[in-house]
Amino acid sequence: MVAFDAIPDLDDPRAQDPVFALHAGGKMEVSSRVRLTGPAELALAYTPGVARVCEAIAAEPELVDDYTWVSNVVAVVTDGTAVLGLGAIGPRAAMPVMEGKAVLFREFGGVNAVPICLDTTDVDRIVETVAALAPSFGGINLEDISAPRCFEIEERLKQRLDIPVFHDDQHGTAVVVLAALENALRLTGRLKETTRVVVCGAGAAGVAVTRILLAAGIGDIAVVDRTGVLHSGREGLNVSKRALAEDTADRTGRSGVLADVMAGADVFVGVSGGTVPEAVVASMGDDAIVVGLANPHPEVHPEVAHRHARIVATGRSDYPNQINNVLAFPGIFRGAFDARVRAITEGMKLAAADALAGIVADEAREDLVIPSPFDPRVAPTVAAAVAEAARRDGVARR
Amino acid sequence: MVAFDAIPDLDDPRAQDPVFALHAGGKMEVSSRVRLTGPAELALAYTPGVARVCEAIAAEPELVDDYTWVSNVVAVVTDGTAVLGLGAIGPRAAMPVMEGKAVLFREFGGVNAVPICLDTTDVDRIVETVAALAPSFGGINLEDISAPRCFEIEERLKQRLDIPVFHDDQHGTAVVVLAALENALRLTGRLKETTRVVVCGAGAAGVAVTRILLAAGIGDIAVVDRTGVLHSGREGLNVSKRALAEDTADRTGRSGVLADVMAGADVFVGVSGGTVPEAVVASMGDDAIVVGLANPHPEVHPEVAHRHARIVATGRSDYPNQINNVLAFPGIFRGAFDARVRAITEGMKLAAADALAGIVADEAREDLVIPSPFDPRVAPTVAAAVAEAARRDGVARR
Repeated sequence: MVAFDAIPDLDDPRAQDPVFALHAGGKMEVSSRVRLTGPAELALAYTPGVARVCEAIAAEPELVDDYTWVSNVVAVVTDGTAVLGLGAIGPRAAMPVMEGKAVLFREFGGVNAVPICLDTTDVDRIVETVAALAPSFGGINLEDISAPRCFEIEERLKQRLDIPVFHDDQHGTAVVVLAALENALRLTGRLKETTRVVVCGAGAAGVAVTRILLAAGIGDIAVVDRTGVLHSGREGLNVSKRALAEDTADRTGRSGVLADVMAGADVFVGVSGGTVPEAVVASMGDDAIVVGLANPHPEVHPEVAHRHARIVATGRSDYPNQINNVLAFPGIFRGAFDARVRAITEGMKLAAADALAGIVADEAREDLVIPSPFDPRVAPTVAAAVAEAARRDGVARR
Repeated sequence: MVAFDAIPDLDDPRAQDPVFALHAGGKMEVSSRVRLTGPAELALAYTPGVARVCEAIAAEPELVDDYTWVSNVVAVVTDGTAVLGLGAIGPRAAMPVMEGKAVLFREFGGVNAVPICLDTTDVDRIVETVAALAPSFGGINLEDISAPRCFEIEERLKQRLDIPVFHDDQHGTAVVVLAALENALRLTGRLKETTRVVVCGAGAAGVAVTRILLAAGIGDIAVVDRTGVLHSGREGLNVSKRALAEDTADRTGRSGVLADVMAGADVFVGVSGGTVPEAVVASMGDDAIVVGLANPHPEVHPEVAHRHARIVATGRSDYPNQINNVLAFPGIFRGAFDARVRAITEGMKLAAADALAGIVADEAREDLVIPSPFDPRVAPTVAAAVAEAARRDGVARR
């Protein structure tokens, strides 16, 4: 049909910058899967033919999954309150990240994704808005929403909707961290039950990492926030931190500050954005495992970490063992959509982590505890494991 | 990257039907405008590079139009209450129409479009929902929302948002009808000021057609609903019908039923879905113009109409002079987006109609008062006229 140039005229020096040049006009577009070159095709894809498809779905609502794109499109929803490490920059400034996410969904998982950046930070209104537009999508990926609001939003939407709701900053990160630790523990000859883990940071990612490590069988975890170790003896803990304390340090009786629990620890997972002093890293046990996810400045710089730890992982692409959510979310939603699931269960997340770890298990070494994001086995392997777990958990519709 | 087969397995006899076969898996998908084959490209399109674009937009919000897809994507929003002629079939059953619309936006106008089918028919909640997701889109195309709710929803959203809001069932139809009448009046040697028009139907399309004909200078219009001619002497008129009466039959003193105002009329426009008796059509003036938009059964069947009228137009693709909204909305939004408008003005709609009529003005004849939807001149010509009118009306930002 008619071709239009969607790229705006830019009388802007930014257009010379490769990042801005690549972003000019946006990173994504919609395309047609049907040909529309004449009246006969128009009569099939639009009126009058389309009316028969509408009538069929009106009579049998589940047919919407077969005859529209709904079953293969996810809304990437943010309110712009916790975008990357930039904070509450708002819905418009969040859009480049959401478009990037949508493009990754498509390219890595064959999943269609639409960025929805909301002009509200009110929890009730976010829940109402997402619930109202839910019939348009096969799943909801929450993104870059600040803690602890993100927990309530996700929980309420999960209760209310019969499509998967997944906060990637929590669960995507958690799945990839668990996968890396599975290989790292095996390489260093540790058992999950007796491994001592310190999680530094009790925001969205910290909570989810802790939860998945507990679900995977790690017995001894201490979660540390700015004030110190979360334990029930501490005053002023909010609901989510209190619940976390009960399942972590309360079990072992640990308390104090970061340095107290790092001494002799097996694993450090940084999801806080702070910096850990080298002496504290040095106090960890032998063959320590250090995962620092803050970007671009990990909580422990890889060069510092390597002086004291055997296995080091970061969020950075310029060092080995990159903990990148793109290893998880495309395959998780691909599997969820392939199995037409109603929800994403704990079992599906654990299966995703196991599958991800398994891809490099045979070749695992200190600098390869997690596959590369560009390893073509990743998404199909994760998707197959997730779909299988969904069927096992009874949430699959096919 | 990894290819996935998004087409569902169908153990369904419908899959053999060409309409259903074409709809299997949906009619649209998202695609990437950037390459993502290695870490260097990922670092530009996603973290860490994307953060610079986010920061630039946070500092200068209008940059969102240059560096994201927002300025070239429209939300096609419905609540499923008036879908084609099928009525209130709900948001899921409406999806095939909204996908069709999205595909037409893309193929005919180079405009990205995302179907948003809402799980609510409450006017307040629709307005709140669309307002909340507005930062994600460059425009809102309302679709298949029942009257008179559609008037309030459109009006409130126009007041509230600084992006174009356009109810296509109203204004798209109105633009194409006006374009056809402009050529038809010229062919039959009529002046707008002295032409007598009967609009049969006072729903979304009837109101909008009447309004644009008034704006274009047609002086004598009678609007007829099931009860008869709208005039202020009639009891029980709702607010929108009373306003319409004041601008139409109140000016000429007409009243009565359809047959009363059809006697001697120059133009009939049917947007009601009923059937007009042949004797009533026969009572129209010489060289009558009959437009029957009900689909698939026009208010006056073309064969009946041709016995009494010189020019006949319908909504059907199998007769000449097809009044099809696809002649208007892709070009209108293309022009609106090209000029980065804050709103779609009356001047822009009139300009669209003039441009559309102008495409076939030199070759116009009884069976060619409007171009074919597949005439490649349509969308660019309409877009250019709309952008120019936007600049004239002071609503363009470039």
